Amino acid sequence: MSTADAYAATSGNEPLAPATVERREVGPRDVLIDIKYCGICHSDIHHVRGEWGPVTYPVAPGHEIAGVVAEVGPEVTRHAVGDRVGVGCMVDSCRECAPCRSGEEQYCLNGTVFTYGSTDRDGTSTNGGYSTHIVVTEDFVLSVPEGLDLDEAAPLMCAGITTYSPLKRWGAGQGKKVAVVGLGGLGHMGVKLAAAMGAEVTVLSQSLKKQADGLRLGAVDYYATSDPGTFEHLAGRFDLILNTVSAQLDLDAHLSLLALDGAMVNVGAPPEPLSVHAFTLASKRRSFAGSNIGGIPETQEMLNFCAGNGLGAEIEPIPAGKINEAYERVLGSDVRYRFVIDIATLG
Amino acid sequence: MSTADAYAATSGNEPLAPATVERREVGPRDVLIDIKYCGICHSDIHHVRGEWGPVTYPVAPGHEIAGVVAEVGPEVTRHAVGDRVGVGCMVDSCRECAPCRSGEEQYCLNGTVFTYGSTDRDGTSTNGGYSTHIVVTEDFVLSVPEGLDLDEAAPLMCAGITTYSPLKRWGAGQGKKVAVVGLGGLGHMGVKLAAAMGAEVTVLSQSLKKQADGLRLGAVDYYATSDPGTFEHLAGRFDLILNTVSAQLDLDAHLSLLALDGAMVNVGAPPEPLSVHAFTLASKRRSFAGSNIGGIPETQEMLNFCAGNGLGAEIEPIPAGKINEAYERVLGSDVRYRFVIDIATLG
Repeated sequence: MSTADAYAATSGNEPLAPATVERREVGPRDVLIDIKYCGICHSDIHHVRGEWGPVTYPVAPGHEIAGVVAEVGPEVTRHAVGDRVGVGCMVDSCRECAPCRSGEEQYCLNGTVFTYGSTDRDGTSTNGGYSTHIVVTEDFVLSVPEGLDLDEAAPLMCAGITTYSPLKRWGAGQGKKVAVVGLGGLGHMGVKLAAAMGAEVTVLSQSLKKQADGLRLGAVDYYATSDPGTFEHLAGRFDLILNTVSAQLDLDAHLSLLALDGAMVNVGAPPEPLSVHAFTLASKRRSFAGSNIGGIPETQEMLNFCAGNGLGAEIEPIPAGKINEAYERVLGSDVRYRFVIDIATLG
Repeated sequence: MSTADAYAATSGNEPLAPATVERREVGPRDVLIDIKYCGICHSDIHHVRGEWGPVTYPVAPGHEIAGVVAEVGPEVTRHAVGDRVGVGCMVDSCRECAPCRSGEEQYCLNGTVFTYGSTDRDGTSTNGGYSTHIVVTEDFVLSVPEGLDLDEAAPLMCAGITTYSPLKRWGAGQGKKVAVVGLGGLGHMGVKLAAAMGAEVTVLSQSLKKQADGLRLGAVDYYATSDPGTFEHLAGRFDLILNTVSAQLDLDAHLSLLALDGAMVNVGAPPEPLSVHAFTLASKRRSFAGSNIGGIPETQEMLNFCAGNGLGAEIEPIPAGKINEAYERVLGSDVRYRFVIDIATLG
């Protein structure tokens, strides 16, 4: 057992504060990572505030981890000391069920071990990347390819794979019209990735405030959903709508923008139920679907795709002391487009 | 212009009554059909009662038509006098848009001409199959293959294709677990068709009242949705759920029965919106979709499939004088499984 300096929540209504978390000894197939950067995901805030269920405090959140391998167990073959690596939302799974065997560990039938707030296989509660070190079994450690800076790579571990996976599965590519709803941490990666896949990308955002950014990131069109004319003008337009917004939205209005056989895929997780008329779906054989991050092999594929296409996240680096302030700014949508904690400022 | 004896609605709150409807002259590419049988679809009731929007009265409903060709226009090549034929929910479409060109006339971008209650290309309002004759352009007339009786074939024109199309599109077949929600006119065809496609079929019905029928029609399992234990027991079980029920249901509970990547497809059209938690979908990458009948080529394919597999609808034949009584029984789910009007009793 060793300890790592961290920033952790001790309750649902107090600011995060410096703390230490325990890390297990490096086992035969474990990798010890010196964390260099960790992105701040909206999920971190939901989790530490108890909005997604009961929480074991203290907990250090963070599942957009990038760093350098400091030590490996004797049986490790995938990573070596000095390698640039990443860890996303998962640190283990059963590895035996059908989803695990097909590389979809996020749908593990026996319970994925998430990077923080999960019960690990040794019975301890997991702690995430707002900390100086982490020990992870090698199979859940990603390689950060050459050409991707670690700070810009960190958010790919969640925001990148969460958008890449549904874009790929629902066929974003040449000749496809894709709308991305919301231009935040997830949305800005959705735009970059869909454009790099060859799709014609439109951003649907509350306002036109970030229009210049959206076009720079690869969108060809940008519409405000606060303008009812948008829904008339774009009716039946898109093959795929990627909804990155967790807030309530008018689902029927958005679904009406889909062409025949189009799909709208939710990657946010609004706590309130959404309302949908079956007729909106049936009238053009539309689908409403959800997608949850992506598996380990697909995450590596996404990282390679990003490196090959020169895509990183757009980040605002912050010192650890600004985490609580950053949380407030995330809640106010005041970030372009991901806060990344410089872990050198911690501890 | 000619007239046909019919049963028609003159308002939304009076019983249907004997009437005459006008039929256009047989044009060069038209087929005049002596209607022998017409099924009673729940949609007929919704339509004549104005529950789906404003109605032009009087209107003769009926879109599950089977009969014999009595006359053909000089340019007709697909059908000949004496042929056994059918007409479903559509009698024309623009034929020029992308969906029409790909045989999906039900999604015509310029407006499908439905069999009743639609504005035809000549500006008149269409009247359906509760009548002795109908004139339809040959491209929208289906052939009833040998081995299918006309009375059992009639309901295939709507109930058959409405279930066949999504079952086929969403991959019902060998090795797939399919649940059919509701064992009514649509549901009983869903069970027969999915079983004939090779799927393992389960019926999910309010009660176990029709269990023996469900198993006889091809299901291997039958569960009551009024029993909360059903949802625990079957969690994550199905690849496809075909929902034929138009009433409100607990959508999250039903979606939770889907396996990874499973889809629930609605073919009913409940007027009230449904409520769904995005997390129910994302947690297993599930989809909720809708499907609207099927195209003309696929309807012919379905008829051939039914003939090849000895599948007709289970019907209760009635004389025209019992239409209003049959409506009440449909609303009370008291029919096994489709009323078919014997048109010889009309006029």
